[in-house]
Amino acid sequence: MAELLTERSARIVAARKLTRRAGRDAAGLFLAEGRQAVVEALAEPDGLREVYATESAAAAHRDLLAGTRVPVRLLTDKAAADLSETVTPQGLLAVCELRDVDPAALVAEPPRLSVALAELADPGNAGTVLRTADACGAGTVVFGAGSADPYGGKAVRASAGSLFHVDVVRGARLDELLPALRAAGVTVLAADGGGEAALDELGDRLAGPVLWLFGNEARGVPAELGALADARVRIPMRGRAESLNLAAAAAICLYATQLQQR
Amino acid sequence: MAELLTERSARIVAARKLTRRAGRDAAGLFLAEGRQAVVEALAEPDGLREVYATESAAAAHRDLLAGTRVPVRLLTDKAAADLSETVTPQGLLAVCELRDVDPAALVAEPPRLSVALAELADPGNAGTVLRTADACGAGTVVFGAGSADPYGGKAVRASAGSLFHVDVVRGARLDELLPALRAAGVTVLAADGGGEAALDELGDRLAGPVLWLFGNEARGVPAELGALADARVRIPMRGRAESLNLAAAAAICLYATQLQQR
Repeated sequence: MAELLTERSARIVAARKLTRRAGRDAAGLFLAEGRQAVVEALAEPDGLREVYATESAAAAHRDLLAGTRVPVRLLTDKAAADLSETVTPQGLLAVCELRDVDPAALVAEPPRLSVALAELADPGNAGTVLRTADACGAGTVVFGAGSADPYGGKAVRASAGSLFHVDVVRGARLDELLPALRAAGVTVLAADGGGEAALDELGDRLAGPVLWLFGNEARGVPAELGALADARVRIPMRGRAESLNLAAAAAICLYATQLQQR
Repeated sequence: MAELLTERSARIVAARKLTRRAGRDAAGLFLAEGRQAVVEALAEPDGLREVYATESAAAAHRDLLAGTRVPVRLLTDKAAADLSETVTPQGLLAVCELRDVDPAALVAEPPRLSVALAELADPGNAGTVLRTADACGAGTVVFGAGSADPYGGKAVRASAGSLFHVDVVRGARLDELLPALRAAGVTVLAADGGGEAALDELGDRLAGPVLWLFGNEARGVPAELGALADARVRIPMRGRAESLNLAAAAAICLYATQLQQR
């Protein structure tokens, strides 16, 4: 029987540091928990270092783990819980390399649809916006300086695998990136409940290369960044709600863009 | 100086029961925490029983609480924390009557847009869908038997006041309600990633009275309910994500409907 790694094993002590942003950035690695994330990680073996599984998870996911060329290491339930950020740890984690892309690559070859997040606070929203961006065909999601980290446990889980499909830029200075993208022919649109343009009246402007800028859950897009956009765009609303939840607003804007980009 | 209610005061012990569904249903009351919720509660004084505030919250929200005709009771920070479901209690809560509406009212006079939730698990999603439904002009949101309770602390917070704008039906038997609504002329659409109809091809079908049915976050709409709909509708997607987050999917469907209903 293979030896089980415990929470005191050097490997687990090291992996535990990946549950914090500073530890991830120092090691250049992150943890992807659960079957769906591990499926996606296995599909891109270049960035996959190793897999951790409890004995019961290894048995339950035998189909998935058979034939993988990276090490699959068994660990105790306690060690798996130490690496998990969920209430009910799934006992299955992949250790993956950070997938950051240089912002210059985004400017050099802008995708038809991309997203930038300014001061987004909630990790769940970070993952949800990644997932929605992926579904709508976005090529890149930029997490501006001060935004939640898309490689944190909650964000990875909320992204439901989409973190592995989309290019990620982190820590970019949006005040420099947005003008560079506009100079490269990208239409920069800032989602803003008080925006002067209505989403349903943008028409053709959505058809070319577009970057959507979304802001903080409570404060919205910082005014100085909104001023750098081609337009500040509101979602027309019929009801009495003052505003939409950030992830809901992003879904609507990205879907409307996808429809014009087909 | 007014006496502060503590966590041992009979009123607080009773109010604490409202943090659980059984307690809310027994008392016919729920707690709405935070300034935004209290603003909405004050706007409909018929259903408002009383307000609890810590001394510092009472000072901070003096503008709001001055002139209200319901009792404003001061309580200790500890008592406020006991009534709160947030990590950082806001020290300001309204005790409100449940706002349930009979499903027969929905059938008798169907709004142009309504929403039904089958087996929705996450209270945050319950509140977010309420907020989005409100923003898109929905008149009623139905929480089917087994769905998260919209009157729970997390749901109330996520609804951002919209719980006070939209009629709420709870515990309805959707297998009976959906056919009754169809007989009343409502187009029932079930959101389903594998649906035979594409959202962007529905056109005029969205213009009349529509009820959108959304399901569980992991399992989707139960098959037996989907079979009762006029159509199962998928959101066309260009990217590699397998599916959208439930609240994101709901936002897209409701926004697309709102556009047709103007």
